Amino acid sequence: MLPYLLLDVDKCLLNIESMIRKARASKVFFRPHVKSHQSIEIASWFRKRGVSGITVSSLKMAAYFSNHGWKDITIAIPAIALDANKINDLAANISLNILVESAEGIDLIGNDAKHELGVFVEIDTGYHRTGISSDDKHSINNILLKIKNSQLVFKGFLSHFGNTYSAASRDEIVQIYKSSIDTLLALKSHFQAIFPDIQLSIGDTPSCSIINDFVEADEIRPGNFVFFDVMQWKLGSCSFDDIAVALIAPVIAKHPERDEIVIHAGAVHLSKEFIVDENGNKIFGLISRFSDGKWSDPIEHAFVTSLSQEHGIVKIRGHEIHSIHPGDLLAILPIHSCLTANLMRSYQTKDGKVIEMMP
Amino acid sequence: MLPYLLLDVDKCLLNIESMIRKARASKVFFRPHVKSHQSIEIASWFRKRGVSGITVSSLKMAAYFSNHGWKDITIAIPAIALDANKINDLAANISLNILVESAEGIDLIGNDAKHELGVFVEIDTGYHRTGISSDDKHSINNILLKIKNSQLVFKGFLSHFGNTYSAASRDEIVQIYKSSIDTLLALKSHFQAIFPDIQLSIGDTPSCSIINDFVEADEIRPGNFVFFDVMQWKLGSCSFDDIAVALIAPVIAKHPERDEIVIHAGAVHLSKEFIVDENGNKIFGLISRFSDGKWSDPIEHAFVTSLSQEHGIVKIRGHEIHSIHPGDLLAILPIHSCLTANLMRSYQTKDGKVIEMMP
Repeated sequence: MLPYLLLDVDKCLLNIESMIRKARASKVFFRPHVKSHQSIEIASWFRKRGVSGITVSSLKMAAYFSNHGWKDITIAIPAIALDANKINDLAANISLNILVESAEGIDLIGNDAKHELGVFVEIDTGYHRTGISSDDKHSINNILLKIKNSQLVFKGFLSHFGNTYSAASRDEIVQIYKSSIDTLLALKSHFQAIFPDIQLSIGDTPSCSIINDFVEADEIRPGNFVFFDVMQWKLGSCSFDDIAVALIAPVIAKHPERDEIVIHAGAVHLSKEFIVDENGNKIFGLISRFSDGKWSDPIEHAFVTSLSQEHGIVKIRGHEIHSIHPGDLLAILPIHSCLTANLMRSYQTKDGKVIEMMP
Repeated sequence: MLPYLLLDVDKCLLNIESMIRKARASKVFFRPHVKSHQSIEIASWFRKRGVSGITVSSLKMAAYFSNHGWKDITIAIPAIALDANKINDLAANISLNILVESAEGIDLIGNDAKHELGVFVEIDTGYHRTGISSDDKHSINNILLKIKNSQLVFKGFLSHFGNTYSAASRDEIVQIYKSSIDTLLALKSHFQAIFPDIQLSIGDTPSCSIINDFVEADEIRPGNFVFFDVMQWKLGSCSFDDIAVALIAPVIAKHPERDEIVIHAGAVHLSKEFIVDENGNKIFGLISRFSDGKWSDPIEHAFVTSLSQEHGIVKIRGHEIHSIHPGDLLAILPIHSCLTANLMRSYQTKDGKVIEMMP
């Protein structure tokens, strides 16, 4: 059924292999984020190469992967008291870490912990989403004391350097990484007297792809690198050839008078994530030709410029439009592969095999 | 499991009832678009009130609803030759209409039609997505002749006045409706000598909500009105109280120093659809307090201002933030309810009943 999400397994395996090698070279624990693929089968490709721990972004995802043999899981979103029972149930069966970023959570979750439950404290080094500001040593100290007095096992500081996503260059990503890791190292040494075994867990895809060694960290948690996408390519995290998924969609209309084709690929397939080009135009996907199960380099000056629920409008400037016809299949390179995968709910390999995602 | 999509069944039934009454008053056939809810149960609420035909946006959706007792379906996205066999199979069992917007499609689908298959020709009256330009009588004539010589049954002209979504006022929506319907009426009369039974099928939610009578049309196909959302409210299609779905999500962090809270509601729950406020700020959702299964009016000056995969950042200016704490549940009113529903895949009523969507 069209459209479908084509997974280039070879590219995906190379992306996995490359990140595993980097983690080993830096002697950091590799705990890939599975929210990007949400697939037991793809996770098994990591396991076959020795990966034993994963990161998830919801309790539901933790329960699913735990039911499928993963026994070492970090839920990388701040825990809430409402989930205390479910967290306890899960911790009975696996080695589980949760994330906290305020002292309030510790009282309710920490005192109810019936099984060994690891806890990371989230530190904000500049992204300003969740996490205690790295400057706020007072709050960090408070939360560490609360953890010490609870039944939780303090693991260390966890941070997501998500500000790398708005970097203008690879150099800026390197700078964000360096200043963020320095901040975490300073915190670690500040609290080392009382807590000698503080781990540092980091790992956005831009840093993990561009930085060559993470020796200062103890653990990395990137996710998106498994597929990469147009956003990562533009950031400099990967080459175009590293992108491992593309949406295969049919052309349903052609309007050369407007330099446009329309594809059956909308917001329910690609997501409404976009990047903005140098002229301020929104781009919701790049377009490649598709044949023999493979996609070409992107067609120059061809962009998905708007999306409604099921339709995508593609602007194609130049002569390329003349050889494209209604009914043709095109490959759409997604801006943010995690969101596209999340919408499509399964992958198809070039051999026609379907790989399901969690329900 | 949090977050979940709460459906206010009473509001939804009122929305359905109100549109049914309007359609009856105008004596037009009501063929609601089910892509907005994708639910057999919600579709059954229409059926109980006498609705017998539906609109879908994909062959997959047509097959699903046909398997669940719907026997009169229009697939409102241009058909492609690749799908000819599946279309034929479906037409064997139900009364099926497809949509075409170019002569190329007719050759391949039309000559293979093994069962009665209705066809609408899509006309572009100004939205510029799919459809033959209403000015292009030459192409329209060509396609009508091709249909006449094929095994397809010509039904009429179908149009989606999607440009109402970018209207600045209710008046502008009325103007777009009037000029678009006039355009279609002129086309109908132009081709009436050869095709005396041309139906006009129209029906975006903004027009269908704001216009009081559609006597010029033969059929309306709105979908979103079943739930409405913030976008429709801002367009003037509905009141805030008509909005029938809200995402119930927990607060996972609070940062009063930035006037921000963070909710566990991200792009995988709400979609990245946004509106832009008068200051140029993106708004991905409105925030209401939630208790006893009901949501309040939106909190003033509180907006979801950015979304990552699972996190939403909410800016709250003023004192309201002081009474909100991590672990609290808030109701997030979606910008585009169809996309939010499509991501959530099920509804929960205030009695805790779960209504599934198509798989």
